[in-house]
Amino acid sequence: MLRRAHGACNLLPAKNGEEPTIQFLLEMVDILTNYVKKTFDRSTKVLDFHHPHQLLEGMEGFNLELSDQPESLEQILVDCRDTLKYGVRTGHPRFFNQLSSGLDIIGLAGEWLTSTANTNMFTYEIAPVFVLMEQLTLKKMREMIGWPDGEGDGIFSPGGAISNMYSVMIARYKYFPEVKTKGMSAAPRLVLFTSEHSHYSIKKAGAALGFGTENVILLSTDERGRVIPADLEAKIIDAKQKGYVPLFVNATAGSTVYGAFDPINEIADICEKYNLWLHVDGAWGGGLLMSRKHRHKLNGVERANSVTWNPHKMMGVPLQCSAILVREKGILAGCNSMCAGYLFQPDKQYDVTYDTGDKAIQCGRHVDIFKFWLMWKAKGTIGFEQHIDKCLDLSQYLYNKIKNREGYEMVFDGVPQHTNVCFWYIPPSLRGMPAGEERREKLHRVAPKIKAMMMESGTTMVGYQPQGNKVNFFRMVVSNPAATQSDIDFLIDEIERMARDL
Amino acid sequence: MLRRAHGACNLLPAKNGEEPTIQFLLEMVDILTNYVKKTFDRSTKVLDFHHPHQLLEGMEGFNLELSDQPESLEQILVDCRDTLKYGVRTGHPRFFNQLSSGLDIIGLAGEWLTSTANTNMFTYEIAPVFVLMEQLTLKKMREMIGWPDGEGDGIFSPGGAISNMYSVMIARYKYFPEVKTKGMSAAPRLVLFTSEHSHYSIKKAGAALGFGTENVILLSTDERGRVIPADLEAKIIDAKQKGYVPLFVNATAGSTVYGAFDPINEIADICEKYNLWLHVDGAWGGGLLMSRKHRHKLNGVERANSVTWNPHKMMGVPLQCSAILVREKGILAGCNSMCAGYLFQPDKQYDVTYDTGDKAIQCGRHVDIFKFWLMWKAKGTIGFEQHIDKCLDLSQYLYNKIKNREGYEMVFDGVPQHTNVCFWYIPPSLRGMPAGEERREKLHRVAPKIKAMMMESGTTMVGYQPQGNKVNFFRMVVSNPAATQSDIDFLIDEIERMARDL
Repeated sequence: MLRRAHGACNLLPAKNGEEPTIQFLLEMVDILTNYVKKTFDRSTKVLDFHHPHQLLEGMEGFNLELSDQPESLEQILVDCRDTLKYGVRTGHPRFFNQLSSGLDIIGLAGEWLTSTANTNMFTYEIAPVFVLMEQLTLKKMREMIGWPDGEGDGIFSPGGAISNMYSVMIARYKYFPEVKTKGMSAAPRLVLFTSEHSHYSIKKAGAALGFGTENVILLSTDERGRVIPADLEAKIIDAKQKGYVPLFVNATAGSTVYGAFDPINEIADICEKYNLWLHVDGAWGGGLLMSRKHRHKLNGVERANSVTWNPHKMMGVPLQCSAILVREKGILAGCNSMCAGYLFQPDKQYDVTYDTGDKAIQCGRHVDIFKFWLMWKAKGTIGFEQHIDKCLDLSQYLYNKIKNREGYEMVFDGVPQHTNVCFWYIPPSLRGMPAGEERREKLHRVAPKIKAMMMESGTTMVGYQPQGNKVNFFRMVVSNPAATQSDIDFLIDEIERMARDL
Repeated sequence: MLRRAHGACNLLPAKNGEEPTIQFLLEMVDILTNYVKKTFDRSTKVLDFHHPHQLLEGMEGFNLELSDQPESLEQILVDCRDTLKYGVRTGHPRFFNQLSSGLDIIGLAGEWLTSTANTNMFTYEIAPVFVLMEQLTLKKMREMIGWPDGEGDGIFSPGGAISNMYSVMIARYKYFPEVKTKGMSAAPRLVLFTSEHSHYSIKKAGAALGFGTENVILLSTDERGRVIPADLEAKIIDAKQKGYVPLFVNATAGSTVYGAFDPINEIADICEKYNLWLHVDGAWGGGLLMSRKHRHKLNGVERANSVTWNPHKMMGVPLQCSAILVREKGILAGCNSMCAGYLFQPDKQYDVTYDTGDKAIQCGRHVDIFKFWLMWKAKGTIGFEQHIDKCLDLSQYLYNKIKNREGYEMVFDGVPQHTNVCFWYIPPSLRGMPAGEERREKLHRVAPKIKAMMMESGTTMVGYQPQGNKVNFFRMVVSNPAATQSDIDFLIDEIERMARDL
């Protein structure tokens, strides 16, 4: 054990700091490996819920306030234990709350190494290995999309929302490059199209980049949440008649709530006809490109101009790991470069085309590639494929289990395209009630109540939301490699147990 | 040792995966702690330089290519060792290449924990402790800025460039909120002002957000790289006369190359007079707010509407850790919120004002707060202060050492405001040469040549760049807690040794 009096000032680079440093790091690792073990142990809770005011008031021995004076290393280790204790085990086999779940051991080790290397992606100069890994990995991803020889461009960004924002930026740059220097006033009134089921980041990008959310036109979907191509064409024609200039269409490959895949080929036909940029938001569904069985759901993706694909979702890579992939080489740099002299000196001794930082909207950029590269090495493409196929099998298991089960109503009919299974649980007290506003209001309150009970008991977590005119329903998703059929069974049992008296 | 045949499929969540998982993680930690030890060992090189084509062709046993089939865990560990071997030791006492340097052990441990927790900042639901830590830490930072009771708003973003982008977005939202829905066409021609020495991210933001780089007006500076307030006022008047609408002024607190602090109070007077948003880009210089001795350099910062402050630079927090701090509460959410129903359900059982994700332009957001919070706990405010004061002392040591030394010319006169010491080294062969184009051209090539030699020999790293009409010069910066006077001496010796025959 570390001596009580020891403080951080005794660690490296302090004189004789080596021994206390290694000792401290090993004690930390002991805390972390214990946490890892418990994460996979089904007898451990997913979370130990406390309200904000409880944590703010301070739990026993755990005080979030910062002070002028240092704490001892012993207290630091206690703080770390408590931070984990009051957090949420996103790797727990019964954590289904988010599209990103699971705790991949190789990815974790990769992230530990990344933190230790503590460098920055902007130049080959200070991240030679990582820059090359990024280039090779992006090329592999482009090959999987189906662009000839994996040619094109791309970059890892801090999440799918930023990747989607990139797609809008480069579409604008492609058609109206003068906006870079002159601003939006140099362009006509541009409109973007995306499904009413698409991720809200397209609207966020529209707001941020100066298009305005009113110029993000929402497309109608079929009952399964897929864009209706005829609606797209009608809205393009309508926009043109109003004098607006259609610029960009986002097709979602794996929508957030329904897991729907828009029909990319039909959308691509329309984009070609009207000369629009086609972006595919595969943040959630892109992973299916790794699966020979399921990749047909993205048929036509090779016709896209740009693709968002988040390995941190369906592929289990630790957060954050999102790629924006672009068919046209050089356009990211064209759109974003500012040629800062202090970073991107042209007179370096190495091939400076490897200094890729200037194509980002960021300056410093976190190393998101290594954990993903390492996982790919450790699993091979086939390992990702197996994981994805297994998750889709599990969600079909859930679908089959509940589709005709008493007390369940599916939000949409048919086998889900992705792992999203959307359903209402109808508590016994509502089952005889006639359809109508009263039942809707009561049903709307069911999912939040069950979810609150889940969190209080800490046994499992699953998401819920309303969508359009549909009242709150559960959205079950499977991306967690630790989940098995028994965990699906457990979830259903828990819902029924908790809802018994609602 | 792990058995050769073991693959990642034997790790958790695999059956009986606990023992191989712990064994694998401990072997990884052994690699990492060895790397940490060597990082602080001055007999170790800063880097082992190879050209891109060399690494791409594959070093012995290190192949970057990805394949369909998995590698053994043994090979994975070798890959990790090689990744570190061919990288750059940014924590080495003689790494001075970037504003971010050093390897803080507490920060490193914090980042390991963050990776292990592997969660996302968008909701209290899945990041309860981290969300509260972020709120408390942002409040402390606002108190240090000097806003009453630390009130206001803020968020951690993926770097200073994005933080600066936020500042422009919220300034626009403050004065022209209709741009969010209607786009830039709803606003008049808006112009932004920033120093010619400011970071290129202001221009990037101008391009991305639809202002256009031509509407980012560059301000003249004095010989030390500080904005001349009279020039700002003249350019505001000029812009207004042309019918443009001045919106936003960026004052830099610690410029990238010179480390200059713009006179914030004088700039704030002008902003108040003309009703403009004042942003202070303290990405680099914000850390000085922690120092009673140096914080006067940011006098007036409390008058800013927003401040960028990157703890990952001067405060030695591992990458990435950047905050955008805002004086007006609620404006970030007003500007960016889209109220996605699947994440930000209003009917949760806890106080949903703690679901802070919707004020970001991101959806998922990496946990950048924990390592910083933990370092603050471990060092106390006084620990950061000591670090900052020491770095500034060291840079003054360098300045005193070379200001009158044969072969050195300072790029600007006087003691640097920050740790940036900018200088030319004049090799013996150029010392007698008369001023003129030939000397300029020759001198321009000196710094790149010395830098290339440094990288090839791997002994130290320092940045260089041209600036305005000044040919390539060295920019020395000190933010590395491991650096001592002996390392400064070493740098000077290396430059002189390498340049002897230039």
